[in-house]
Amino acid sequence: MTYCVGMVLEKGLVLMSDTRTNSGVDNISTFRKMFHWTVPGERIITVMSAGNLATTQAVVSQLEERTKAPDDRENSLLGMPTMFTVATEIGRLLRDTIDERQKANGNSGRNRFTASIIVAGQIAGMEPRLFYVYPEGNFIEASLDTPFFQIGELKYGRPIIIRGYDRTMSFEDAIKLLMVSFDSTLKANLSVGLPLDLMVIEKDGFAPSHTNRITAEDEYFQSISSSWGDALRSAFHSLPDYQIKD
Amino acid sequence: MTYCVGMVLEKGLVLMSDTRTNSGVDNISTFRKMFHWTVPGERIITVMSAGNLATTQAVVSQLEERTKAPDDRENSLLGMPTMFTVATEIGRLLRDTIDERQKANGNSGRNRFTASIIVAGQIAGMEPRLFYVYPEGNFIEASLDTPFFQIGELKYGRPIIIRGYDRTMSFEDAIKLLMVSFDSTLKANLSVGLPLDLMVIEKDGFAPSHTNRITAEDEYFQSISSSWGDALRSAFHSLPDYQIKD
Repeated sequence: MTYCVGMVLEKGLVLMSDTRTNSGVDNISTFRKMFHWTVPGERIITVMSAGNLATTQAVVSQLEERTKAPDDRENSLLGMPTMFTVATEIGRLLRDTIDERQKANGNSGRNRFTASIIVAGQIAGMEPRLFYVYPEGNFIEASLDTPFFQIGELKYGRPIIIRGYDRTMSFEDAIKLLMVSFDSTLKANLSVGLPLDLMVIEKDGFAPSHTNRITAEDEYFQSISSSWGDALRSAFHSLPDYQIKD
Repeated sequence: MTYCVGMVLEKGLVLMSDTRTNSGVDNISTFRKMFHWTVPGERIITVMSAGNLATTQAVVSQLEERTKAPDDRENSLLGMPTMFTVATEIGRLLRDTIDERQKANGNSGRNRFTASIIVAGQIAGMEPRLFYVYPEGNFIEASLDTPFFQIGELKYGRPIIIRGYDRTMSFEDAIKLLMVSFDSTLKANLSVGLPLDLMVIEKDGFAPSHTNRITAEDEYFQSISSSWGDALRSAFHSLPDYQIKD
């Protein structure tokens, strides 16, 4: 499993992903699920992935390969004119990768090689954008109504994001919100694990304005994890009491 | 879908269930999922069910039928010597009901008729007990380590129960906790719906000491639902702030 969240704020984009991969509970590893490409001052494109690791690594490796051929920038994320064309190309690549693997396995592996990708970024002259790319290759874009996307194990950490999200919030508050959401998820699902990768993309910065890898030793994450329990209990006790009338 | 929670406290048992059933999103209905049988002063047995409605209704109807034959109490929940035998019998009945339906459909409906049941209650001379009965007919019992069971759509409402539960809490606090957990779930999953059924079984009471059907018009539930958002935001802001150092 996996847990990744991408969030649109007025000030830019905030992204967080875990790093656990597992094939059963007796075979777990740590793999980065967040990757980015930049042309300083012109564009930044970040992807986060959930699903079959061989599939998502194949997609990311192909995207990476293409940026290495400087004469053929059209085919590369670094040469595409808009974030829409970037999402379209990543969708095509994702679907083709899944299809190829399924065909090679006589379609017996249907749903086995599936994956989803969050695409976030900005190209100069346009707004920051956030997309959710489905295994079928099509995608949706975040909007004022739905300003964040989650992939993987999304349910445990969703209620706090629904209640806490505010488009005008600071990057610091958004990071705090994501830490709480990830902490709730980590406590409930063994297949989501530390360390976490964090990236802030400030609007018109065209580079990661802040990144962090949050390990089990991270003091801030530890303080959130330990104080959130107390804060929740205080919140709970501040609610009106139920009256048993019978 | 469904959401039901059964909880063991020092003072007794607290149970809550929703009432929504759906076959697709365009065919929703309201059905009670909590049923109980009592012998005043001697025993109370309550079940809550999740899964295929025809299956769970068949099980409950058969349990009900048996209590109507006063000369044959051995076969009835009202005549069984312990809660363990009650859970065993409900498990047998559940598995047989699922098996029968699957065989009648040439096993093509495998997993289609599945269901799970929470069994809670107390028989005089013994402690209150709580069981989770699987579709296979076997079951587990709540313990000090795992003092509550959830069935159905459990993920959204789980983090708050993990953080808020305390074995020594009052019935009023436990009800408040369940209201918050159900509110988070209702906000996230359309297939869990109001009204909610609530039952408190005080230890050695051998009757429901409090019951309530919580509708959309319930003022207490409305106040929890509206104030929980504010309380959560206050809790969130009470946490230490993240420092962006780059």
